[in-house]
Amino acid sequence: MIGKLNHIAIIVGDLEAAIERFHQLFGARLLEREFLDESQTDVAVLDLNGVHVELLSSPDETSRVGRILRERGEGVHHLSFHTDHIEAELERLHRKGVRLLDERPRRGLHGRKIAFLDPTSTDGVLIELVQEPESDHQ
Amino acid sequence: MIGKLNHIAIIVGDLEAAIERFHQLFGARLLEREFLDESQTDVAVLDLNGVHVELLSSPDETSRVGRILRERGEGVHHLSFHTDHIEAELERLHRKGVRLLDERPRRGLHGRKIAFLDPTSTDGVLIELVQEPESDHQ
Repeated sequence: MIGKLNHIAIIVGDLEAAIERFHQLFGARLLEREFLDESQTDVAVLDLNGVHVELLSSPDETSRVGRILRERGEGVHHLSFHTDHIEAELERLHRKGVRLLDERPRRGLHGRKIAFLDPTSTDGVLIELVQEPESDHQ
Repeated sequence: MIGKLNHIAIIVGDLEAAIERFHQLFGARLLEREFLDESQTDVAVLDLNGVHVELLSSPDETSRVGRILRERGEGVHHLSFHTDHIEAELERLHRKGVRLLDERPRRGLHGRKIAFLDPTSTDGVLIELVQEPESDHQ
């Protein structure tokens, strides 16, 4: 089954301004910054009173994040939940009729395995499953 | 300042089906159900592995939730965070330039005080502040 909330992901236009805004307004602390070449995505992970918030932006209008920003604007993009066995969990959800955007896990930050469910199967909410590398199993 | 995440609110078309779906797919447990006459909103609060998820629906297409459902469809609606002193917090945020949808708190479920921030001030994310009744102060 799925476990605890891993993070709430938010797409923003100006990443630096958003990091500063979430800090000034809500006391959020910056935990990490990373630029993902493959997807041309700029990522900042914040700690917002115990909840991790992942801010996503992109300098490239044709990237996935860039397209969403252009077409739908800023806002909550997905909710991410831990799982210990992502392949088994995807199979279980598929058997229950959930459409999968990723039939097999792909590589996320720091060697994590990630996969997205099709939001048409989950009331319009884009849900990501994430499995930590072996050493981080909880 | 704002405190911990209180809940993630999701607007759904069919509340009964969504409660069952979140249970079957993700093991979410139903904590409470309530129908709010004033706003014609049907509310279900679920525990999803430690995170409270508030499912919102409405039988009335002209209600606030009904309009959002018709215009934007299902999906994440707002993020709600605890605060101990909602009036002071609204004043602090206003001084920092945040536009407020509720300049003064209004009454939420179970005697809570709630207020929404204008999402144009918070990167497209609709944020609710919630203060528990006195006896529940943490």
